[in-house]
Amino acid sequence: MIRVALDVMGGDAAPETPLDGARAALEEWPEDIALVLVGPEDAVAPHLVDLPAERVSWLPAAERIDATEAPAHAVRRKPDSSIVRGLEAVRDGEVEAFVSAGSTGAIMVASMLTLGVLPGVDRPPAAAVFPTATGRVLVLDVGANIQVRPHQLHQFARLGSIYLRDVLRGRDPRVGLLNVGEEEEKGGDISIAAYGLLAEDDELEFVGNIEGHQIIAGACDVLVCGGFVGNVLLKFYESISGFILTVLRDSGMPEGRDLDEVLRFLDYTEYGGAPLLGVNGVTFICHGSSPARAIKNAIRSAADAVACHAVNDMRTGLQSITLEEVEG
Amino acid sequence: MIRVALDVMGGDAAPETPLDGARAALEEWPEDIALVLVGPEDAVAPHLVDLPAERVSWLPAAERIDATEAPAHAVRRKPDSSIVRGLEAVRDGEVEAFVSAGSTGAIMVASMLTLGVLPGVDRPPAAAVFPTATGRVLVLDVGANIQVRPHQLHQFARLGSIYLRDVLRGRDPRVGLLNVGEEEEKGGDISIAAYGLLAEDDELEFVGNIEGHQIIAGACDVLVCGGFVGNVLLKFYESISGFILTVLRDSGMPEGRDLDEVLRFLDYTEYGGAPLLGVNGVTFICHGSSPARAIKNAIRSAADAVACHAVNDMRTGLQSITLEEVEG
Repeated sequence: MIRVALDVMGGDAAPETPLDGARAALEEWPEDIALVLVGPEDAVAPHLVDLPAERVSWLPAAERIDATEAPAHAVRRKPDSSIVRGLEAVRDGEVEAFVSAGSTGAIMVASMLTLGVLPGVDRPPAAAVFPTATGRVLVLDVGANIQVRPHQLHQFARLGSIYLRDVLRGRDPRVGLLNVGEEEEKGGDISIAAYGLLAEDDELEFVGNIEGHQIIAGACDVLVCGGFVGNVLLKFYESISGFILTVLRDSGMPEGRDLDEVLRFLDYTEYGGAPLLGVNGVTFICHGSSPARAIKNAIRSAADAVACHAVNDMRTGLQSITLEEVEG
Repeated sequence: MIRVALDVMGGDAAPETPLDGARAALEEWPEDIALVLVGPEDAVAPHLVDLPAERVSWLPAAERIDATEAPAHAVRRKPDSSIVRGLEAVRDGEVEAFVSAGSTGAIMVASMLTLGVLPGVDRPPAAAVFPTATGRVLVLDVGANIQVRPHQLHQFARLGSIYLRDVLRGRDPRVGLLNVGEEEEKGGDISIAAYGLLAEDDELEFVGNIEGHQIIAGACDVLVCGGFVGNVLLKFYESISGFILTVLRDSGMPEGRDLDEVLRFLDYTEYGGAPLLGVNGVTFICHGSSPARAIKNAIRSAADAVACHAVNDMRTGLQSITLEEVEG
């Protein structure tokens, strides 16, 4: 049984949506998932009655960190928040993973403070799965690090490759660097330096720069980028497939084979959340607007990451990275 | 008659595709468009016979700048290139606009050197029209400036607002700042400082930060961002709508109302090219992979920008911008 701590207070529709996600996960995977619901008594206790007692418990946390609060400040000021309590439970071995639709920044800061980062990692990236024409690509960072340096992009490539192999069962992942042109000298100083580090690393299958239109074509399996562009791209992608579906429905497309079915592969809630890679424990971040299905699938993805020993493999896989520029 | 210089040597399929685009433009708009074809004799001369002599002429240019060449170096070393010759024709008043599917960097550098920038502009942004749920949004920069500073984003907002009003006939354009969160303090130093400049400018209708998923919803009419993220987003958008169309066709969607027709509004070739705003003349940049339809429509867009006196309006509209940080 893999124990996952779920932040009941995370997300725009908390606690209802996280609780709905919890219920769905417990129902769908009765064999191997147990949940620890993290939140205040009034939010959690009324629901414990309906849930299977042997697989669900409650971890009290009286405070909630809002998306509008400055992350570092909020984490320090609210030690009894659901985010901090949930991550402490991972650190102390009471659970194996933490899932939250709360503030990305606060989860990031609290994960670094509570779990710590693996040797060779400056700051953990968040990684998201994008569906493509040929399967999927793991994009990182999608928002945990706004400004990145070349050696961090190199770390992202290592972390992403290991995660893809371990958890998503991808063989020999091809790594691409998101850029504005194919040529090695494109994209400014950071991109050029990152290109050099990636090209020199024998443990990576580096396929070079990837432009915006090559992502969906499936030109690589792991795409590294800064958190700003990654975050914009992720949210844009999720919105556009929904938008095109609406346009098609509104246009009175004939209902032959169902549109939803054909375009299901574009549904981001399939993977549910973005793992924070490079911390010493399994943490999944969901959008604040995640529906219950996304929460449910993030719980599944987190349990899979635990079952694959992804954190240990990342620890090993990072050992050979040059650390010349590593910062606190 | 508006005279547009077309770079016959620009793009992956030059000279054929630019020439096809020229032919289509001459046919579709016999009233107001004349073309000057810029390129070497062997590429242009054989085609002059078939084209209406009173509306087509040839401007010799023996050299071609490739996308792989370092822009500044290439522009200096190839004074007889189609890009330099075409822009000189704009500068000298022989034509009113220049259209090219050649190297973005080279067009940018040559435009700055040949035409010069308007007072109050550091470096010109390239602007692209994205179709949205409610119409369209003008996104800038889409690749001319990889690293931007806050006051440049402010300049982009002014330039984009004027272009939208003049050429795209948009009223009271709402300006958004592309970011990773809605709150004013999101996105790092550059975003925060740009937010402040945009919010303080009474001549702009600033609606705040816009996240990736709000673009397609039509949350603003002018979206300012750095050239890196803008370029990735543009290419990604163009690829994803084509991809979804392919998926739907392959899935055997019933052919009721035609898919192409329903999704035509997503076709980027409708606008054809990206104007380079803030230079002292009309310049349009097309993708290297542009089909003839995109070239044709870029010629139309360039002629429209001339007819609207967009450059003069931008010159006027920039006068009140604070110039404290303007660099060469």
